[in-house]
Amino acid sequence: MIELNLTHSEAYISAPLDYEGAEKAKRRLLREDNADEPLGWVRLPENYDREELGRIKACAERIRTNSDAVVVVGVGGSYLGARAVLELIRGCEYNLLKKDCPNIYFTGTDYSTGAFSRFLSFIEDKDYSLLVISKSGTTSETAVALRIFRDARLKKYGREGAKERIICITDAKKGALREMCIREGYESFPVPEDIGGRYSVLSSVGLLPLACAGIDIEALLEGARAEMEDCMSENGKNYAISYALSRRALNEDGKAIEILASFEPGFRFFGEWWKQLFGESEGKDLKGIFPSAAEFTTDLHAIGQFIQDGPRILQETVVFFRKSGGDVRVPPAESNADGLDYLVGTSLEDINEKAMQATVKAHYDGGVPVSLITLPDMSEKSVGALIYFFEFACALSAYMSGVNPFNQPGVEAYKKNMSALLKAGS
Amino acid sequence: MIELNLTHSEAYISAPLDYEGAEKAKRRLLREDNADEPLGWVRLPENYDREELGRIKACAERIRTNSDAVVVVGVGGSYLGARAVLELIRGCEYNLLKKDCPNIYFTGTDYSTGAFSRFLSFIEDKDYSLLVISKSGTTSETAVALRIFRDARLKKYGREGAKERIICITDAKKGALREMCIREGYESFPVPEDIGGRYSVLSSVGLLPLACAGIDIEALLEGARAEMEDCMSENGKNYAISYALSRRALNEDGKAIEILASFEPGFRFFGEWWKQLFGESEGKDLKGIFPSAAEFTTDLHAIGQFIQDGPRILQETVVFFRKSGGDVRVPPAESNADGLDYLVGTSLEDINEKAMQATVKAHYDGGVPVSLITLPDMSEKSVGALIYFFEFACALSAYMSGVNPFNQPGVEAYKKNMSALLKAGS
Repeated sequence: MIELNLTHSEAYISAPLDYEGAEKAKRRLLREDNADEPLGWVRLPENYDREELGRIKACAERIRTNSDAVVVVGVGGSYLGARAVLELIRGCEYNLLKKDCPNIYFTGTDYSTGAFSRFLSFIEDKDYSLLVISKSGTTSETAVALRIFRDARLKKYGREGAKERIICITDAKKGALREMCIREGYESFPVPEDIGGRYSVLSSVGLLPLACAGIDIEALLEGARAEMEDCMSENGKNYAISYALSRRALNEDGKAIEILASFEPGFRFFGEWWKQLFGESEGKDLKGIFPSAAEFTTDLHAIGQFIQDGPRILQETVVFFRKSGGDVRVPPAESNADGLDYLVGTSLEDINEKAMQATVKAHYDGGVPVSLITLPDMSEKSVGALIYFFEFACALSAYMSGVNPFNQPGVEAYKKNMSALLKAGS
Repeated sequence: MIELNLTHSEAYISAPLDYEGAEKAKRRLLREDNADEPLGWVRLPENYDREELGRIKACAERIRTNSDAVVVVGVGGSYLGARAVLELIRGCEYNLLKKDCPNIYFTGTDYSTGAFSRFLSFIEDKDYSLLVISKSGTTSETAVALRIFRDARLKKYGREGAKERIICITDAKKGALREMCIREGYESFPVPEDIGGRYSVLSSVGLLPLACAGIDIEALLEGARAEMEDCMSENGKNYAISYALSRRALNEDGKAIEILASFEPGFRFFGEWWKQLFGESEGKDLKGIFPSAAEFTTDLHAIGQFIQDGPRILQETVVFFRKSGGDVRVPPAESNADGLDYLVGTSLEDINEKAMQATVKAHYDGGVPVSLITLPDMSEKSVGALIYFFEFACALSAYMSGVNPFNQPGVEAYKKNMSALLKAGS
């Protein structure tokens, strides 16, 4: 499903490709008897618990019938994956569109009173369900937002009525959210113990909110399963390995920044998800490739100048979808002052593909290595495959650079300071 | 209005501060007799044509009475500034909120058929006005979108009726859009000849869409005018110069990437505007600091790990607003399992400020120089001042590094390739 073309990056690689490191990293990823490493995501697409999948679909169905909207409370890996897939498949304007599914809002990601109060005033008269996602249940942003929105649900529906409208995704056995579920009788889904936040989008963490929006979660898993087979294959055409090898070698050649670029506005949050995945997995022990994202063609009129002519410390990875959905063509006009008459009747899809080819060539000619990932369309199957591809390639890359892909020790530093400041002030 | 605190960055600077270069650059910016340089933005906040301002307000008033929505067609500097200010002041959920002003949609930024067809199906039954922004009138994305949406306006209202609902912001004398305005009798506003796209948000380019959304554009200009005085002052406490000096010196010390971070979700597109401003102004002749943006606290759970522990090639600039609007406090709950009871009654505004202080200290301790910009609030005056501050500091920085802040030669490369590909295929 996924194709990787390195024609426009290979020429810039002078560092040797670490085939041995890649194979070693791959063996480590497949060695599932190592209980210490959270590798549950590796075989998840084929191992997914059918009973849980049925429960997710039933829960989403109930929410679709009793709610105008779903308010998802979660931060970092607890929301980025679902938002990424939702916006890529349904568009970033999902909430504006006419549809059979409830609107989906992501909150609990920050402490802005301005944003909170605007959102509260907007949502208060809606019949919304609350979907709370946190493994520990004590992540501060999530815990604060949960108190605020749960309070509103209790006031509107009472303790019994709120039961129908609060669902938790949290650790199966312990933690503050688990305690609340037991005490209040809320429906819940487990965050698998052996899957970290940024690798969790294909677990209930991503699947439940996506099912609420009518995304075909079985097809998403099916795409991931197909890609899993490709990632594990031994036939030498293993794109995840090729991508990991190429980006690491380019990094050794001084390409310190990787820009993930697409030609779809709905890709913005996929870029955010990808930045977390690679940034948190690789960015430690003073190592890592700085992850950045761009949305073309609009950003060709913004960061494009820097890519073309700035310091040659960039590598670019372009994700291109051959079919974007819909059929829009250049209409005729009474004057050719804009110079577009030669394109009348041409599909914007064709123009977008030419823009992609033109950009790859321009950046390559300008000294930026470009790796091109192509997918047939933006269907659930394709997006599932893309998720798995990046997860696998990311873990490979991190192992190859000698860091642990699954911890995030640096995230504690600000939390510790913050807790001290709040306790001193309270 | 703006305060700059370099306490957490100075310690990391070993390169000498180029005071002489900064003064020379400042003199160059103020030397308005140089007709070759597009410096019209430098004194714009005090020179603004009052008659034009009146016309902008009258036009916005008309649109507010005859339109449900405004569709802004423009790319790069023709939309980023307006979207940045709108989302910062009114929130990224502006279009969802109940209000007296029309919804504002930005389009014509790409060639995605999926995004176009979703938007067309959503907007077709609305009474919308079309605001087309392009200096030349031949920017492809804009020209294509104009044909599509104008076609829809003509079909719905006829040629006469469409006149009321199509407004152009373009070159005062020449180009495809100007020709159309003359031919069809559309109302129009000039893109000043001596102001480039990325410095144009305080001209009609930004002011007309913002006035449609009820933004107080006089206060925006007033804030910019106050900041202009500070930027031009000789009293030694010139923050724009201090910021330019500091970021350039840090760059010489190997800090190749600058992350602009805020603690407000509405800041996302301000970050995009800033990335264009600095990326296009500085990123040329193999020079420039790679501009990236982050939204805290949410991204502390994403790119935060890389900032804390990755390669020490980062400098960070934090923009913090003391008041975010609204009053939201941590409510009580029946259990303290989440550990939040000690914060009951605390304003989220206080928590956000502690989060900011904790982050600055953590990143500084981790080896990242952090410059802190503080503003009193997110009012029009503050935002106007912030825009001017960055424009002035950016032009200073670019002059100091020996590049032209006002051209973008690299943007032509992909356009040339694309035109060749399209012509070959047509």
